[in-house]
Amino acid sequence: MDDKIVLTGIKPTGMPHIGNYLGAFKPSIDLSQNHKTFMFIADLHALNAVHDAKVVKQHSYEAAAFMIAMGVNLENTALFRQSDVNEIYQLTEFLMNVTPKGLMNRAHSYKAMVEKNTEAGIDIDSGVNMGLYTYPILMAADILLYNSDLVPVGKDQKQHVEFARDIAGYFNNIYGETFKMPEPVIGEDCGIIPGLDGRKMSKSYDNTIPLLCPSNELKKKIMRIITDSKTPEEPKNPDESTIFQIYKLFANNDEVAALRKRFLDGGLGYGTAKTILFEKIDSVLSAPRKEYERLMANPAEIDKILEHGAEQAKRVAAKTITKIKKKMLGI
Amino acid sequence: MDDKIVLTGIKPTGMPHIGNYLGAFKPSIDLSQNHKTFMFIADLHALNAVHDAKVVKQHSYEAAAFMIAMGVNLENTALFRQSDVNEIYQLTEFLMNVTPKGLMNRAHSYKAMVEKNTEAGIDIDSGVNMGLYTYPILMAADILLYNSDLVPVGKDQKQHVEFARDIAGYFNNIYGETFKMPEPVIGEDCGIIPGLDGRKMSKSYDNTIPLLCPSNELKKKIMRIITDSKTPEEPKNPDESTIFQIYKLFANNDEVAALRKRFLDGGLGYGTAKTILFEKIDSVLSAPRKEYERLMANPAEIDKILEHGAEQAKRVAAKTITKIKKKMLGI
Repeated sequence: MDDKIVLTGIKPTGMPHIGNYLGAFKPSIDLSQNHKTFMFIADLHALNAVHDAKVVKQHSYEAAAFMIAMGVNLENTALFRQSDVNEIYQLTEFLMNVTPKGLMNRAHSYKAMVEKNTEAGIDIDSGVNMGLYTYPILMAADILLYNSDLVPVGKDQKQHVEFARDIAGYFNNIYGETFKMPEPVIGEDCGIIPGLDGRKMSKSYDNTIPLLCPSNELKKKIMRIITDSKTPEEPKNPDESTIFQIYKLFANNDEVAALRKRFLDGGLGYGTAKTILFEKIDSVLSAPRKEYERLMANPAEIDKILEHGAEQAKRVAAKTITKIKKKMLGI
Repeated sequence: MDDKIVLTGIKPTGMPHIGNYLGAFKPSIDLSQNHKTFMFIADLHALNAVHDAKVVKQHSYEAAAFMIAMGVNLENTALFRQSDVNEIYQLTEFLMNVTPKGLMNRAHSYKAMVEKNTEAGIDIDSGVNMGLYTYPILMAADILLYNSDLVPVGKDQKQHVEFARDIAGYFNNIYGETFKMPEPVIGEDCGIIPGLDGRKMSKSYDNTIPLLCPSNELKKKIMRIITDSKTPEEPKNPDESTIFQIYKLFANNDEVAALRKRFLDGGLGYGTAKTILFEKIDSVLSAPRKEYERLMANPAEIDKILEHGAEQAKRVAAKTITKIKKKMLGI
């Protein structure tokens, strides 16, 4: 355990699929094993897109239960709802005043909207609300409020940390050395994880396998994996098989080697291979799934964990805000 | 006393001049005599332009002492520092998510910057920080947090209330009837108040008379009023005289009529007229000036008033935030 502080936000958007999990959640859970970690359920970030409180609330429970079930180390980790820490709103507002508007214009998600609107020939800001436009500042506040050193992110989220560094720099320039510079931790490249149809696993392709779902649902999904039309007898290239690619993510080295051999030798039908894959995932995930289901049936237990996490987070956050108020307002 | 709630923000920008006072402060002080009033020192609004904590703090004390000295009714009024109410940051962040970016693009102060930058041939967002860009949302939150009915504003600030109404409407549309619609109260038109050089009194012309300042400073300012070159003997048109225009703002009807006659009759030199004006203002403002100076020498007394005000404000604000969190986050 080194003394670096880790910061992770979990956007409450429903059950993560295997691709999400490996790219975004597992690295954070791994870091939590030996780092002081602040892990928040990003319910405020959800608000710029989700305008249904029931959905935000339900997904927040799911996200918390998921992280606990997947083994986040609660000894080291303050797991909390972002909206429960009053200081996050304060720091966001304070940081607005040192952030050039030009920086926001360069945010990936805003630029994507502008591009889409331009292509459609409509006003570039059509459909953009100020929550979406300013979310990089909220994100910077998330990172800076807790004196974070390390921020595990997917490659496509690296900009969040870069912006947090930029904004920290603007503040330090005006008000003197205050914030330390957070570093992004880009997870090991586990390659592109294929979905049911062989393309990259992604919600937008509707080809995902949810990480924790009832056995029968998991089985149905896996049976839908698209294969070529080789007969059982024919030898098969495991490296071209979605089934094998996914199997590698869950099995140990010996198991992987054994299945590789069966692919190459021939005599293994895709149906059988799918069953092997299903049984593997099902057994690896059966304990976390049970824990997840247990927690979801006991929201009061999740609340208790989140409240305890919020208390820990607030202690650190309050110190940051005291410092910032002194520097900006003199009070 | 009717049951309408009044909301006023005082931007801490140094001692108001006579023009400011009559246009912006006096209407609020008048309304506070018979309305429940929330009056905040807008230190958060100052932050997008003033990056020196000492200045913000000092000007905040001055603004508070000024309003008290000028007679705001503290029985009816919660006078507080904007930044002391945690709920203001929360509501600002919540409202971001219902506010279209297009609305911000139409804000007067942002448009003025864009125009200036365009004329200079530089990037339209040059020098625009996100505090400036989003301040209409902070302003809307100021208004909506306290269930305000009436918002006294100068003509040029009417947009703030219109935006608050727009944003309240967006919220109500998505989350159901929540905010009531505030109404702007545009003060009586007291005409253009001339400054020392005869042009409109304005900081940008450096022609102002500060409302509360030491006698000798006041005298010096008034002696600088620019006049024409008429001799003492010549009759003068009072309606063309800056001295007379300012005198009208402080003297009673009989006094105004008497001075008008002396202008028209001739025999009144401008030096004498200036002395008459100085003595009038000096006597009218001597009591508030003393009270202002007393308060500024006792910042602890101001703090106490502001803390008491913040407590009252927080009680109302907390109820609003509880309601909003329930509607947006389900918690």
